[in-house]
Parts: sequence; structure tokens; C-alpha cells
Amino acid sequence: MLLVLSPYNLLIHCEAIINMENSSEKCNFEGNKELNASTITVGGIYDMLLDSINHEDTRSVVRLGRVDPTDNPLFRTTTVAVDAITRAVHSFNFNCYPPTVGLPEAKRAVADHLTSNLPHKIISPENVFLTIGGTQAIDIILPSLARPGANILLPKPGYPHYELRATRCLLEIRHFDLLPERGWEVDLDSLEALADENTVAIVFISPSSPCGNVFTYEHLKRVAEIASKLGIFVISDEVYAHVTFGSKPFVPMREFSSIVPIVTKIIDNLEITSDPTTIVQASIPGILEKTTDDFHSNNLNILREAANIFYDGCKEIPCLTCPHKPEGAMVVMVEINFSQLEGIVDDVQFCTKLAKEESVILFPGVAVGLKNWVRVSLAVDLSDLKDGLSRIREFSLRHAKMS
Amino acid sequence: MLLVLSPYNLLIHCEAIINMENSSEKCNFEGNKELNASTITVGGIYDMLLDSINHEDTRSVVRLGRVDPTDNPLFRTTTVAVDAITRAVHSFNFNCYPPTVGLPEAKRAVADHLTSNLPHKIISPENVFLTIGGTQAIDIILPSLARPGANILLPKPGYPHYELRATRCLLEIRHFDLLPERGWEVDLDSLEALADENTVAIVFISPSSPCGNVFTYEHLKRVAEIASKLGIFVISDEVYAHVTFGSKPFVPMREFSSIVPIVTKIIDNLEITSDPTTIVQASIPGILEKTTDDFHSNNLNILREAANIFYDGCKEIPCLTCPHKPEGAMVVMVEINFSQLEGIVDDVQFCTKLAKEESVILFPGVAVGLKNWVRVSLAVDLSDLKDGLSRIREFSLRHAKMS
Repeated sequence: MLLVLSPYNLLIHCEAIINMENSSEKCNFEGNKELNASTITVGGIYDMLLDSINHEDTRSVVRLGRVDPTDNPLFRTTTVAVDAITRAVHSFNFNCYPPTVGLPEAKRAVADHLTSNLPHKIISPENVFLTIGGTQAIDIILPSLARPGANILLPKPGYPHYELRATRCLLEIRHFDLLPERGWEVDLDSLEALADENTVAIVFISPSSPCGNVFTYEHLKRVAEIASKLGIFVISDEVYAHVTFGSKPFVPMREFSSIVPIVTKIIDNLEITSDPTTIVQASIPGILEKTTDDFHSNNLNILREAANIFYDGCKEIPCLTCPHKPEGAMVVMVEINFSQLEGIVDDVQFCTKLAKEESVILFPGVAVGLKNWVRVSLAVDLSDLKDGLSRIREFSLRHAKMS
Repeated sequence: MLLVLSPYNLLIHCEAIINMENSSEKCNFEGNKELNASTITVGGIYDMLLDSINHEDTRSVVRLGRVDPTDNPLFRTTTVAVDAITRAVHSFNFNCYPPTVGLPEAKRAVADHLTSNLPHKIISPENVFLTIGGTQAIDIILPSLARPGANILLPKPGYPHYELRATRCLLEIRHFDLLPERGWEVDLDSLEALADENTVAIVFISPSSPCGNVFTYEHLKRVAEIASKLGIFVISDEVYAHVTFGSKPFVPMREFSSIVPIVTKIIDNLEITSDPTTIVQASIPGILEKTTDDFHSNNLNILREAANIFYDGCKEIPCLTCPHKPEGAMVVMVEINFSQLEGIVDDVQFCTKLAKEESVILFPGVAVGLKNWVRVSLAVDLSDLKDGLSRIREFSLRHAKMS
């Protein structure tokens, strides 16, 4: 039983819900400013950090907190996307309400795209559902699984919108750990013990955000096998599909469709009440067909360089430890070594002081489920990244504990 | 306490949530194929009617059921809208995630637009919220009002998405009647008796859909006064604002802001997790500024002609009674006279037989809360409307009860 959330899609096993990001490029999965995991508001934290900036600091603010690659001209989308949308608008054919489940031509293009490398066409257009973004897909799927007493397995660290939505629809949240000492793989031993007869699904973000690791074929297979044994859905959040720039390739969960059997009945429970803009839907076939590989490889080259710069730079910062060089997605998790710091007690205080003293915005780990870590975006200008690392190093030295 | 839902907006008193329709023209509020008022699925009914069409009938299908003016080339949007979106796309500045509450320039343009005819600028940009459509505005507002035991007053007939969302968030629904014999005005006497200390809001659709009437200044004032006395929110659904083509002008509920005092605290409860496409938001200022009056007056002229054709044509159909000539919005409610019909017992059967025998699609009233009436769309090609009326007359004569 498998649901997949991919760059702009979410599969229910081989039923796909397509998340149409506002940007037509392969966009990240962030951007909900009002997310919160129960008590924490991502937007609130970000605003608080921006408010902490000292306006007498003449240096520019280095923003490594948000993950919006469109902030960076290097990641600018192609003219293919611009042309496709322009064509749709000028046709006057797509000012109408789209079918709730999506324009047929868009669904077909996505199904073809997702199965182009697979031996079997396991995803049919009828089983593709278009949504406004990743968050709407979560908003639709989680309530469809909710029933009294049900629980859901969520990764820690993870993406806080799952927590928000699960809480709202009264799905009990059970967190399984991603282990930094094992390259952020799932703690498989404890995973099975977490589940019981009321567990309805496991959310699995692959490539991993916020950890930046890419899971191996074997590890993914083990997750699929455990889910199969438990008889639960796998919600495979593949928003960063193919955003890999290390040694491991991206493996879609649909490779294991023989292990996690196709379940279609959940579709009857899906309640989609707002549709993606029709002109954007209409642009999908053209974008998928005409976008050339060099657009993607160029983006991956930038991310790879950012990962290298960050990982090497981090080694020079005494108070930070990056346990695993990022190989995928667009963010990385870094541990704060409080034993190296004087008078700083948690991640929120660390980020607040850093914003105030160095005009650098990092994202406190507590907001993604890992207190006393920080999340750093790699989808930024490389000179900003270098500048930010240099300022964080200064900060770290200035606040170093006297031994 | 007032919330207003207007062409692309919804005001919380003077706090506006802007509903961005996919089409940039003043669009109707329909289009959710999966709506249902508890047990009834609008999409299901529509599909059933289409399935009933006899494919051996060589005549074209006359679709008077759905309300999508973009189906009709006469209602085609302007090049102003096309140019505004094209400009936004080509700028590469709007591929980003927008702020959750909307792009500032769009909010400002909408606030200015909504207050252009008012003596006081009672709507500030900060109190404008952009949503993906009318349905998302309903999806956001109703849960923000829900609390255990709360109830909401909904019009009958009305717009079924209110029923769907209220049911989902456990808001008890209490219907107040719109009275055909009084030109579809609210049954004010019974309205007050319906409410109690657990009533949180009244939904008021003005101009009225599906009834097609326009409320007078005095009637609106009475509704505002009653709401004020009851201490409840008015959710004023003004999606058809200014879509009036009879003798009465549109009066926005914000005219009565002195009666229903401004309440802002509801904003804290609003949970907006999916945003309107940024490029569409970015196009709003240009569209509002440059769209000329003749676009709107042309649309109104078409609707006025459709209303005349329909009202006159209806008089020639023994089994239908249109109690009130439509003066606003884009639909009209018509009563079925079963005393004139042989072997037809309800509105669904009437519509099914009509689809099968005459390839004409009407919408059964039961789906909008008024059993044994039908809802007819006026946003259609005029020759289709005439053709449809002629076929309905044939049908009526063929099924006439022998006296």
C-alpha cells in the first residue's frame, strides 16, 4: 500500500496526486509560512529571526533559512516553462474550471513522465490527481486516512506540515528516528515496534528533507517490506525526486510496487475542493516534454557545489557538526555543539543571536523535529553561502567556551 | 461582525479574503464537481445526467446545468487579463512562494478596488486575504468558526459547499428559507427564531445564487441588524458582486459596517495552507486597473438578454414556473409543476428524463437545497438557451397529464 508524493506528484500506490508548485520548475516542498508542528510556527520563527537582525549592520542579510530556489537567479526556470504558460493563457482555452481530478492532458503527461523509466506502465492517467502543492496533497491524504484511534508514523526530523495536518484530523502522531550516525537512515528496528493495529500509514521523505541524504535501494526495500508486513500505506514524499548530486541515484518507491500492493479504495475518500490553476495544468505537457536535461543537471551541479562548500566550511566551525555530507534534496541538518559555546542554551537562541550579531538566518531544528540542530538551505547563491559560513565561524569563535 | 465573499474576495468585516478564480474574469462561484450537501454529489448528479443522454440523438447537448461562463465565447475574458499574466510570467519575479496572506501589491490593489466607491477606506490591504477560490475561502472560514456545539445559519436554497464544509467541521447546519413568493427575500421572521447562543454566523449570498434575485438596501440592512442583535458573523458571499442586470443595484454588505462592527480576532484562527498561484496574484493589480467598464457592461447585457429570453420562454412551458425574473448572478430557480406531468415524481427524475429524451441538462434543485425545483444557468449561448427552452416545452407537452 503505497502513496507517493513526487516533484509535482503524489502517488497512491500507482495512483498519483500531482502537486503543482507555483513555480513550474522542480521546486522544493517548503513555503508554508504558517506551518507549525503543534506549538511551533515556522513563519513565526522566521519572522522572529528577521526581527532580530541588527539594522545597523551594513552587511547584507544571508538567508540560509528558507528553501526557495527561485530566490536564486541561478535556479531560474527555463523559457520552456514561460512559453508553455504563455501559450496556455493566449489560447483562451484554459480559463475554465478544470476537472477536480485534473486536466486529462496534464494527467496523461505526468503518468507518462513518471513511468518513462519503468518496464511496466504502473501509473495510469486516471490514477493521477493534480493538487495545488505538496501541502494540499498532505491536506487531502491525511484526513482520508483518519479514523477514531488511528495513528500515523512520521519521520523525525521531518516536514512539519504532516504534524500540523495529522493533529488537525486527530491522527495520533508516532515519530520514528532518522539516525545521523547511520547517514540518516530510518531506525528500522524501532519502526516496527512503533506500529500497532491502529497504524494507518508511514510517511517517508525520499530523498530526505531536511537531512539531505539519499536512501539506498536496499534500505527503501526494507521500508517497503516492513510496511507490507504491517499492512499500512507508505506515503512516499518524493518531492525531491531526482534531486541527487552525490554517489547514490534516486530510487522511486514505486520500484517496490510488488511488495506494497496497489490499493485504490482510498481514492473514494479523497476530498479535493480547490483545483490547481487551469493555465498551469495546461502547461504541464509542454514543460515535461521540452525541458532539457541540462536544466536539471545545471541545478544539480550548483547544489553539489553548495554541498561541498558547506560541508568543508562546516569543518572549520567549532560549534557545528555536519554528520553527513548532503547528497540530495536542498537542505542539510547540522548539530550544534553546546559544549563549545558559552551562554547559548538551545537552537532557537543560537539562531536568534546569529541573526542579531551576524545577519545570518539559519532555521532552528526544533521546527522540523530535531531540537538543538539547525537546518541550512543549499538552494542559495554560492557567494552568500561562503559569506554565511565565514560569519558563522566568527560567531562560533566569539562565543567559544573558555576551556 | 461581518465577513464578505466577493468576486474574488471574502471580507472578514473589513478584512478581505480574496478568492482568486482560475479565470481572471468575474467568474461564478460554481465548479466544484465533488461538492455534496451531505449525501448529494453535484458532480455525481451531473455525470449521471450526461450518462443519460441518448447518443442516437443527433442534436447537440444543451448544457444549462453547469455555471461556467468561460464555456461561452461571449464571456471571453479581456486581453488585459491575458497581458497581465503574460507579463508576470515573463518577469521571472513571481515563480516564488507568495506570502501566505497574499502578495502585498495584489492585496493593496484589491483593497483599493473594494473601497473605491466608499467614503471611508474601511478595507486595508493588511486585512485582505487571497485564496485560491470561493471554495477555499469557505474551507478556511467555516473551520475557524467551529467549536463544540456551534451552529451556522445557511440559506435554502444555497451553495452546497457550505453544507459540505460545515458538516466536515462539525458545525450544525440550520437552514433559513429564501421565499420565492417574496422575490426570494430572506424569511426574516423565522431567521431570528432559528438562532440561539451557539449560533456563530449566517451565510448570505448576495446577489443571490441560485435564485438570481438582487436584495434591496433595506432588506440587507435588516439582515445586518438581526445579525448584530444576535451577535453573530455575517459571511456575505458576494461572489456575484455587481453582476446585476435588473432594476436594483448591488449593495455590498460592507455598507452596513456601522451596524455589524469590525471583528478582527477571527484572523488568528485562519489556517491557509495552500496559496493562489503567484503569477495570477501578480496579475491582479493590472487587471483591476485596466479592465474597462465595457467588458462588464457587455457581460451584463448578455445576461439580461438571457434572463428575458428565459423568463418569457418559461411562460410557454406548462410544467415550469419561474416565480421571479432573474436580476443578478448567473442562475435562476424554477419550480416543476408535477400536477401538469404524467409519471414524473421528482426533480432528479425530471432532469434525467429530459437529458435522455431531449439532450438538455438542467440541474436538480435538490442539490442546492430545494427539492422539486431546477436550477438553470444563464451564462450560456443565447441560441442554446432558446433551443433548450424549445426542447423543454416539447418535453412538457409530451409528458402532460391528461385532464
